[in-house]
Amino acid sequence: MDEIQDKVVNFVKDEVTKRGFKKVILGLSGGIDSALVAFIVAKAIGPENVYSIMMPYKTSSKESIEHAELVVKATGINCKKIEITPMVDAYFGIAGEASGLRRGNYMSRTRMCVLFDNSAKENALVVGTSNKTELLLGYGTQFGDMACGINPIGELLKAQVWELSRRMGVPKEVIDKKPSADLWAGQTDEEELGFSYDLADEILYHIIYKNKNEEEIKNMGYDKEVVESIFKKIARNEYKRNMPTIAKIK
Amino acid sequence: MDEIQDKVVNFVKDEVTKRGFKKVILGLSGGIDSALVAFIVAKAIGPENVYSIMMPYKTSSKESIEHAELVVKATGINCKKIEITPMVDAYFGIAGEASGLRRGNYMSRTRMCVLFDNSAKENALVVGTSNKTELLLGYGTQFGDMACGINPIGELLKAQVWELSRRMGVPKEVIDKKPSADLWAGQTDEEELGFSYDLADEILYHIIYKNKNEEEIKNMGYDKEVVESIFKKIARNEYKRNMPTIAKIK
Repeated sequence: MDEIQDKVVNFVKDEVTKRGFKKVILGLSGGIDSALVAFIVAKAIGPENVYSIMMPYKTSSKESIEHAELVVKATGINCKKIEITPMVDAYFGIAGEASGLRRGNYMSRTRMCVLFDNSAKENALVVGTSNKTELLLGYGTQFGDMACGINPIGELLKAQVWELSRRMGVPKEVIDKKPSADLWAGQTDEEELGFSYDLADEILYHIIYKNKNEEEIKNMGYDKEVVESIFKKIARNEYKRNMPTIAKIK
Repeated sequence: MDEIQDKVVNFVKDEVTKRGFKKVILGLSGGIDSALVAFIVAKAIGPENVYSIMMPYKTSSKESIEHAELVVKATGINCKKIEITPMVDAYFGIAGEASGLRRGNYMSRTRMCVLFDNSAKENALVVGTSNKTELLLGYGTQFGDMACGINPIGELLKAQVWELSRRMGVPKEVIDKKPSADLWAGQTDEEELGFSYDLADEILYHIIYKNKNEEEIKNMGYDKEVVESIFKKIARNEYKRNMPTIAKIK
């Protein structure tokens, strides 16, 4: 873990310099992924060079804000709060009723708009906070929370995010709570995904580091439905991990 | 040009099918790029399967809307209008004064939010409208107008966009006007870029198809400042053509 910590911290230092920036900016949700990234970037370039924005919607939980504030206090990074409610409600006032999924994606993309505008204002590089488990499962919004310039934790499975967070001193409250995209009251990632992160990480480990296929993993005794669901998610969300497809004319 | 037309039309047919869609959606600005894409997708999958959205801001020119309407009439595609003014003004009401560039990028990203929400609503694949000249020069907003699922004209230089547009019957008014991102009254792309599209395309042609370097192109007699500006733009905006950089941990 010390080695991983060094790698992600040095990655941030190198990329910030290489791209001609002195500062970075990130969205702070109150969840563990953005908390860990805050600790990483503060260590890499100093908390005074780190900007963060909390971007709650009117239904976001109070606890999320409290946890984000714990992270700000523990790291010493700069922080401000910009509510996305006026922009989101202005849109759905025109668009009418929409599913929770559509609303959640719109919120995530509105946060991207706000974050990138503040990136331009502060001349600060946007640092992403998606982990490898989310990226592989496609559990994120394309051009929303997945949008960034650099991402120090995109190769870490959720289990590694937890481990490194403990190591780097992320507040206990943030580590111990159930992961949630906080799109509605009581939402948890694991209920929505239909399996636990621990189980997903085990299966993903066999896929990406042991090159096992679907049949082989089923034969190892894992729940067949979960294995199928994970392979389906990886395939169906591949487009989110790639640039748009451009027509070849040669 | 007939060959190019076949390639981009077949590309749309193939990608729409391969990705499990029946419909596509695009933003119609009134400019030539989105007009050409409207003609391409209408030919590829039938105008009844094409959705388009005009997303003017309160300062957008009346002419842009009129030209978008000409395209809708000529192609027979579906169209609706959603003003982005409430969402954009809600944000800058909070954020305060901002440069024209920041405001333009925020508008572009807000259009992306609206377009992708309608993509989910209509189950329609988002088709991009950035041409190769814009993509190489980075003359576009990352996670804004550059965001899409597929892009049929991303390999066409602006000159090829003009030529194919004439061939496919894009209305003369759209072809003949000066290209503009319409971010403020009287804006033209060429004034903002500092050189004409014709000149840019010639230089880009030598770079990408003839593998010439900066010195060689300067020695061909082109304006040295323009050549430098083009090479700088290509390098500085490379990040827009790539996925975020993720830290390696192995």
